[in-house]
Amino acid sequence: MKEIIQSVKGARDFYPEDKAIHNWLYDKMRLVSTRFGYEEWDGPFLEKLELYAAKSGEELVKEQAFVFPDRGGEMIALRPELTLSLARMVAQRQGSLTFPLRWWSFGPFWRYEKPQKGRAREFFQWNIDLIGVNSPEADAELIAIVAEFLKSVDLLPSEVLIRVNDRQLMEAKLKALGVELTRKGEVYKLIDRRDKMSADAWESKAKEIGLTRQQLTGLEKLLADGEGWRESENLTRVFSALEAMGVRDYVVFDPHILRGLDYYTGTVFEAFDVEKKYRAILGGGRYDNLVADVGGEPLPGVGFAMGDMVLQVVLDALGKLPQPNLSKADVLVTVFDAEHAVLSMQLAAQLRASGLRAAVYPESGKLAKQFKYADRLGVKFVVVIGPDEAEKGQATLKDLAAGSQMTIPLGAVTGQILHQLVDEKPS
Amino acid sequence: MKEIIQSVKGARDFYPEDKAIHNWLYDKMRLVSTRFGYEEWDGPFLEKLELYAAKSGEELVKEQAFVFPDRGGEMIALRPELTLSLARMVAQRQGSLTFPLRWWSFGPFWRYEKPQKGRAREFFQWNIDLIGVNSPEADAELIAIVAEFLKSVDLLPSEVLIRVNDRQLMEAKLKALGVELTRKGEVYKLIDRRDKMSADAWESKAKEIGLTRQQLTGLEKLLADGEGWRESENLTRVFSALEAMGVRDYVVFDPHILRGLDYYTGTVFEAFDVEKKYRAILGGGRYDNLVADVGGEPLPGVGFAMGDMVLQVVLDALGKLPQPNLSKADVLVTVFDAEHAVLSMQLAAQLRASGLRAAVYPESGKLAKQFKYADRLGVKFVVVIGPDEAEKGQATLKDLAAGSQMTIPLGAVTGQILHQLVDEKPS
Repeated sequence: MKEIIQSVKGARDFYPEDKAIHNWLYDKMRLVSTRFGYEEWDGPFLEKLELYAAKSGEELVKEQAFVFPDRGGEMIALRPELTLSLARMVAQRQGSLTFPLRWWSFGPFWRYEKPQKGRAREFFQWNIDLIGVNSPEADAELIAIVAEFLKSVDLLPSEVLIRVNDRQLMEAKLKALGVELTRKGEVYKLIDRRDKMSADAWESKAKEIGLTRQQLTGLEKLLADGEGWRESENLTRVFSALEAMGVRDYVVFDPHILRGLDYYTGTVFEAFDVEKKYRAILGGGRYDNLVADVGGEPLPGVGFAMGDMVLQVVLDALGKLPQPNLSKADVLVTVFDAEHAVLSMQLAAQLRASGLRAAVYPESGKLAKQFKYADRLGVKFVVVIGPDEAEKGQATLKDLAAGSQMTIPLGAVTGQILHQLVDEKPS
Repeated sequence: MKEIIQSVKGARDFYPEDKAIHNWLYDKMRLVSTRFGYEEWDGPFLEKLELYAAKSGEELVKEQAFVFPDRGGEMIALRPELTLSLARMVAQRQGSLTFPLRWWSFGPFWRYEKPQKGRAREFFQWNIDLIGVNSPEADAELIAIVAEFLKSVDLLPSEVLIRVNDRQLMEAKLKALGVELTRKGEVYKLIDRRDKMSADAWESKAKEIGLTRQQLTGLEKLLADGEGWRESENLTRVFSALEAMGVRDYVVFDPHILRGLDYYTGTVFEAFDVEKKYRAILGGGRYDNLVADVGGEPLPGVGFAMGDMVLQVVLDALGKLPQPNLSKADVLVTVFDAEHAVLSMQLAAQLRASGLRAAVYPESGKLAKQFKYADRLGVKFVVVIGPDEAEKGQATLKDLAAGSQMTIPLGAVTGQILHQLVDEKPS
């Protein structure tokens, strides 16, 4: 036997059952985004490498992006994230767009990472951003959107939490400890790694980047202080707005959250399963320099991105990933033989015109085989038009679920099916 | 002023108004596909180059595909078409899928072509295929789907036509003219180019590839014969099935249609505006060897692909491209000042919980500015909660369309808006 050509490692096949879950997620994102007044948009999938080079952070661009020269020799990237496309597109129409601007999007992204559970090289992201205003209430709105989304997929605050911090608060506290701000990046990385290293290794690393014993003690203390947000007017207002929007129970202050990307300037947040068994479900924050960085006039922004994969892993682990309804049609119209195929096709066209999903068996074949097919399609009704029926201008309509059947005029089939569907709808 | 970083040539920005049209098209495709009993799926966006190398035709792979080595050195292509991914995915689960199998998809594709009106390097395609059966009725079903789709976007048979041919009929006729079948490819290309060349140039080209004067005359005669389909049992049955499904008026026989891709084996078709002012809106046909070609067991198939761009050009030229509804929310809840922001956010959360699209002004600011913003959002209602209202637990609700306003208890606002929306719905 010949070998089937392989797919690309880390690329994803969406069979209908996968696509159904994908669409379920997309619908949930759409619903929440729309309720908060956000408009759907999308950027291109290809961008010039230079767009990311300045601001996304070295790791993302140099190690993770799929980059290649196009046939004209220019360096192109398969987009590894969306925020810089957003900044570019906003900058291009800065004079005509209406601010504050609320945009959301769901589309594919690519990163050259090691494929594993919850991570592929080709993945989808929900991106949602509020541009043109710098206020704690704007930050809170994005966090409330996260909470409402989690609620909409049936995730409870006892299962997932949104961890919030503020880079400016951290910066002030580090300054108070006497940490030089030029070393901020290294210290952020140190904080970010605390979960992933042993206490000893972490302390060595801290010494290595030049923290004194006293600074380290101070840092440990501030990371342990769950009430540290009270010193930040920004976070105090963020939490009070979340309280007002009824989603405070999804949110905790966590001074470890700093986000990997370079462009964040204030509030930052990530959502995790409560036990942090899996990687972050989503992450985001405030970025106030990005539109200016790509060449526009300065404009503040806040937003987040959620991949489609970790969320599914978390939902699956909790038994909350839905079973998609894979009924492929409402009715199968069988084909008795070549001679009677025309009648079957005519009837199917009538059924469709009335809004029903009607599949025709696309060749003649044994009825038993066609009924077996109907079963696998998950249809509720099967129609048979054999020589007896045809002669009298009739059709036999079988209700597979009820196990009943009736022979009625061809012209009455559509009405009868609609009638039975309405009757049986749960009220 | 700094220069804004440019986008990639031939890539596409989807601003909300573009995305709205994109979604309108997607909805139309979904509706028609679903009514015929097709399930949504998608392939990956990256595939190995070798998948296309065998069967898509040299031009597509060597000249048009975006190809690059990944970080592991393997040659990867950004998918230029979907049918080979379909064949691969079907071959991989051939033992467990239900045949006949009906699948549709709408996603991005890439080809390195010169960007022009109706053509970009990054584009979307609707793909729809019926796998596992080889019958003229199956071919007719795909053509009927085209017709129903065209109808659904308000295109009439006086504006667009589906041109149908059969490669086997053409092969038989060429054989009758004494044209060697080894030269079939060249002759197909010649026929395909007839529209694009002067009569003289075309005749020279025919001589160049070795056609005799007599063969050329024969070829011209067969290309002029609009009734040639009557000699094909396949096309006779295709047309009779289209008649049965009530869409025969969208279809003509056209012996010039042969399709560029190598893998077609029988019925082929393309849709054009009647004057053929623009390029093909879509194209497809029967491919019976593809699943075996990628390594599976032999399985016949028929399908088509429609790009999203030429259709929009045609619709636009006919004044039939819809104006998307860009109302961004139902209600704007204004924020009187920082002190009263909490009340505004509480109310907005209530409005959303009842299913309304409610935007909050995300900072405090002059009310006049917020009303101007409401206008640009296209909202119908604006809510104001100032100190007077707050003291009495009330809000002022303005109906912008009606020009009316009322001050009512905070808890009554949601109900009042829902009530007014229902009252004003066109019945």
